[in-house]
Amino acid sequence: MRATTLHAPGDIRVSDVPDPTITSPTDAVIKVTAGCICGSDLWPYRGENPITAGSTIGHECVGVVEEVGSEVASFKPGDFVVVPFCHCDNSCAHCRAGVQSACNNLGMTVSGQGEYALVTQAEGSLVKTDGMPDASQIPSLLALSDVMPTGWHAAVSAGVPEGGTVVVVGDGAVGLCGALAASVMGAEKVIVMSRHEPRQKIATEFGATHIVATRGREGAAAVKEITGGVGADAVLECVGTDEAMGTAFGVARPGATVGFVGVPHGVQLPVGRMFQKNVSLAGGMAPVRRYLPELLDLVTSGQVNPGLVFDSTMPLDEVAEGYRAMDERRAIKVLINP
Amino acid sequence: MRATTLHAPGDIRVSDVPDPTITSPTDAVIKVTAGCICGSDLWPYRGENPITAGSTIGHECVGVVEEVGSEVASFKPGDFVVVPFCHCDNSCAHCRAGVQSACNNLGMTVSGQGEYALVTQAEGSLVKTDGMPDASQIPSLLALSDVMPTGWHAAVSAGVPEGGTVVVVGDGAVGLCGALAASVMGAEKVIVMSRHEPRQKIATEFGATHIVATRGREGAAAVKEITGGVGADAVLECVGTDEAMGTAFGVARPGATVGFVGVPHGVQLPVGRMFQKNVSLAGGMAPVRRYLPELLDLVTSGQVNPGLVFDSTMPLDEVAEGYRAMDERRAIKVLINP
Repeated sequence: MRATTLHAPGDIRVSDVPDPTITSPTDAVIKVTAGCICGSDLWPYRGENPITAGSTIGHECVGVVEEVGSEVASFKPGDFVVVPFCHCDNSCAHCRAGVQSACNNLGMTVSGQGEYALVTQAEGSLVKTDGMPDASQIPSLLALSDVMPTGWHAAVSAGVPEGGTVVVVGDGAVGLCGALAASVMGAEKVIVMSRHEPRQKIATEFGATHIVATRGREGAAAVKEITGGVGADAVLECVGTDEAMGTAFGVARPGATVGFVGVPHGVQLPVGRMFQKNVSLAGGMAPVRRYLPELLDLVTSGQVNPGLVFDSTMPLDEVAEGYRAMDERRAIKVLINP
Repeated sequence: MRATTLHAPGDIRVSDVPDPTITSPTDAVIKVTAGCICGSDLWPYRGENPITAGSTIGHECVGVVEEVGSEVASFKPGDFVVVPFCHCDNSCAHCRAGVQSACNNLGMTVSGQGEYALVTQAEGSLVKTDGMPDASQIPSLLALSDVMPTGWHAAVSAGVPEGGTVVVVGDGAVGLCGALAASVMGAEKVIVMSRHEPRQKIATEFGATHIVATRGREGAAAVKEITGGVGADAVLECVGTDEAMGTAFGVARPGATVGFVGVPHGVQLPVGRMFQKNVSLAGGMAPVRRYLPELLDLVTSGQVNPGLVFDSTMPLDEVAEGYRAMDERRAIKVLINP
C-alpha cells in the first residue's frame, strides 16, 4: 500500500510499504477513508523526537473495516468505524477504571496517513457509525480518533465546573477542541489564549467567550482582569512546552486544576507554586475509547462540529506539503485523503 | 515571654522575646496551653531552609484566648481554641473555594513553641471547644492545628475512594494522620510504607491494613503484589523529598492521584510518567480551617485520636532536646508544654 513515511527531520515521503495483515485474533485491518496530521507528528518531523528512518507515521483515521481476526465479534467488513489512536481491550483493570490509554494491551495506529491501518485490539477499541456517513460528516468523525477526545480529556481532567471560568492555553486543534469541550460542559467563561486570527475565529465558533492575544505576564494579567483578580477555575494545557505549562499555572486560581494533554517536551513543573497555591495537575494521554460513545452522539446529533479544525484537505500525494503547512502554522490541521 | 528561637542550624534556644500584642482589629493573642515541633521545623533546624537568626519558631498550638482585637466578635478571653497554623479570613474568594491556605489575608503562627501566640485573622481562623478540655484531650486537639488536617488534606487531595486501596509514603506524624484519614474515609486497604516499629504500631492503630517495610523498587514491588499488580487508587506523599515523590508515583495505578502535603525540597516531578499513566498530583499547604469543624467533631466524639502521634512530651526548657529527638528519629512528634 501507499503510506506516509518519515526518513529524517523534515523528510516526509509517500512510500510503498507492506499491507497490514491480521496476525492476532484481536486485530482488524481498516481501509482508511480519511487520516490527518497531528500536532504531535511535528515533534519527530522537527527532529525533537527520535526517528526510525522509513517508518510509517499517522495515528488518526476513520475508515471501513476490511478484515477482522477471529476474536472480533462486533465488527465486520464494511462497517464504518472511528479508530482511536490508542488501541485498548476495554476490559483490563485500567480500562475498567477509565484509563484506556494505559491498557494492559495498549496498541497504536501507525499508518493512519496511509491506505490501510491495523488495529491491534479491534473489539475493545473501535466504534462504528449507523451506516455509512455522508462525506460532510467525515471531518468531525475523524476528529474523534484523537483531537476531540484529547481536548475533551483536558477538560475532564481539569474538572471544568459548570458556570466556571476556564482558560485554554494553546490554539492548536487540541486547544480549540478543549474550548469546545469546556463550552459543552457548561463553563460560563471560556478564555482562549491565541494570537492567530483564523484560530480565534474557530475558538469563538466553539464557544470561547474571551480571546487573550498576549502571552507571558501580560497574558496572565489579562486573564486576571477577566476573572476579577481571582484566576481560572480550570486550565487546559494543550501544547506540551515548558512555556505553555508556565502560563497554565500562572493563570490558575488557588485550588484549580491544570488539565494537560500536550505531550510534555522539556517541561519542568513548578512544584513549589503547586504546593503554595494548591494547584493540581491532571491528565495525560487521552483514553479515547472512554469518551467515544458520548462524543459520537454529540457529533452525529449535530451538537458539535469538531471537524472545523480541519482548515485544509489534501490528497496523500501532497502529505509533505501538509506537514510544511502545519509546521509553519499556515494550516491548523490537515486532513489527508488516501 | 519565653519562646523557642532558632539561631543557626542545630542551635535552638529558649529566649525572652517581646509578648505579642494586638496591632490589628482582626488579631487575637492566645496563651499557649500546648505547642509542638513539626517535621517542617526540621528543615530550617537542619539548615536546609534559610534562617533569620534569633527568630521564634513553632506554628502549631492550642490555648486560651487572652485578648482580641475590635473586629473579633466570636471569641473572648477565656475561650479554649484550636489555632490553625495558617490564619485566614475565611471570607475571601480563595477561602470560599476551600483554599484557606491561599487566603488573601494569609498569616502564620510564629511562636507556637512559646508562651503566647498571635493570630492575625482570629475571627476566620480559630475554632473553639465547648468549655475547657480535659488534659487527656489536649494532644488530639493540638494535632488539629496542623498535623491531622494536613494528613486529611493529603487524603482529600488524593481522592481516597471508599473501598479503595491507598498507599501512604512517609511514616512521620503527617503520614500516620494520613493513614488515619484514609481509614476514616473508608479505604479498604491502607498500606503504610514504614521501617520503624513504633510508627508501624501507631499506623496499625490508625487503621493501616498493610505495612511495607521495604523501599524503592522493592517497596513498589511489594505494593504491586498487595494490589494484585494494579497499583494504588490513591497515594499520600507525606515527606516532601524527591525520593518519596518518586516512590509515590511508582506505586500509583494509572488514573490515580498522588496527594502531596510534604513541603517539597528538591523535588523533580516525573511529568513524562504522569502523562503516560495519567497519574495526577494534587495537594499542597493544607487549608486547615476548612476541615476543622468536621475534625473537631471526630476528636471530641472520640472517633479519632490523632494525639497518639505525640510519643514524647517536654517542658519548654527542654525544647532543644525535642528537636534533637525528632531530628534523630528517636521521637515521632514532641509536644511542648510552655
